[in-house]
Amino acid sequence: MIKKNKKLNKREKNKKNNRSIIIKAGIDTFLKKGISQTTVRDIIRNTDLASGTFYNYFKSKEEILIAALDESAIKIGQELRPRRKNAKNLEEFIYSQVNPFFEFARDHSELFMIMSSNLNDVKAFSVETPMMTLELESLKEDIIIGIKEGILPDVDPDYFCSVIQSVSEGIAFTFVRGRMSNKDINSAVKFCTNFIVNGIRAV
Amino acid sequence: MIKKNKKLNKREKNKKNNRSIIIKAGIDTFLKKGISQTTVRDIIRNTDLASGTFYNYFKSKEEILIAALDESAIKIGQELRPRRKNAKNLEEFIYSQVNPFFEFARDHSELFMIMSSNLNDVKAFSVETPMMTLELESLKEDIIIGIKEGILPDVDPDYFCSVIQSVSEGIAFTFVRGRMSNKDINSAVKFCTNFIVNGIRAV
Repeated sequence: MIKKNKKLNKREKNKKNNRSIIIKAGIDTFLKKGISQTTVRDIIRNTDLASGTFYNYFKSKEEILIAALDESAIKIGQELRPRRKNAKNLEEFIYSQVNPFFEFARDHSELFMIMSSNLNDVKAFSVETPMMTLELESLKEDIIIGIKEGILPDVDPDYFCSVIQSVSEGIAFTFVRGRMSNKDINSAVKFCTNFIVNGIRAV
Repeated sequence: MIKKNKKLNKREKNKKNNRSIIIKAGIDTFLKKGISQTTVRDIIRNTDLASGTFYNYFKSKEEILIAALDESAIKIGQELRPRRKNAKNLEEFIYSQVNPFFEFARDHSELFMIMSSNLNDVKAFSVETPMMTLELESLKEDIIIGIKEGILPDVDPDYFCSVIQSVSEGIAFTFVRGRMSNKDINSAVKFCTNFIVNGIRAV
């Protein structure tokens, strides 16, 4: 019994490992060649896996990006949820979300770069994956609670949630693209936090 | 000579007509079936054109959406450029952009709906097409001029441009999705303008 369990665990572990290896190779290849120029063969060549292995995990190269974004959403959600629950006012609430998000953008700039370079027909794109949708719904719930408790101003929760998302994403993209020139993370976080806080206060 | 010219003109006209017909049929079909479920055959069935005609104009169904967004960017750019040049201060500048953009979103909500419904793997997505990139570059140039002339506050032009784009798009998506419930255009324009103006003033 123990042996079998061990075996199963090993197989599960291999499966998880292979999936991670393919995601990592996919992101690396997208970054070098651009998504539209990348083939599944290019991605598999970047690993030690057999070429058929890819389709045990993904249907298309695009699914790799979605998987990477879903994983990031889960990871960053685990960071953002408890932080915003501790916020005592609007500034703390916004800063608690913006600061870790920009640290994530700095440490995973490859995800942002993939969506804004080396594309054929479009200059940039963005997607909202299922896990991102879940995290945004959780954010909206906490905004509604914050308004009820008097911690946050009484603003339409759909628009409230939308501006936190769109400003953070927009400034993070601009920050990542402009890092080589003169943009630094502290001024980006400050810009983003002040902009959202004072915008929300005024509506 | 006149005859030949007339003939050429007619052919040119047909070409432009066919392209418009395919774009319109594509948008209609995307709206009903979702982009991922739509085939080129579905789109052509929605027209009187022969099935091979499609590939004279487009390489893929995705190119239809890009073409529609490019055309929209040109149209809305023609409206936005002169308006912002007449602005005397920050409020006028922002309102001159936000108001026509939301009227466009209301009148062409199908473009926004296509990007936020009936999708397989992602809840929503957005793209920046070449003409949108050009319009955003023109906006940034006018922001730099406005700052030099003292009409606009001295804010990093990349971030300035980014928040106008991201807040307008984010609120417009939320407005279009929520129209059936309780969102009206005047409050959306007011929210968006006040948010951007006061956010920019504070950074």
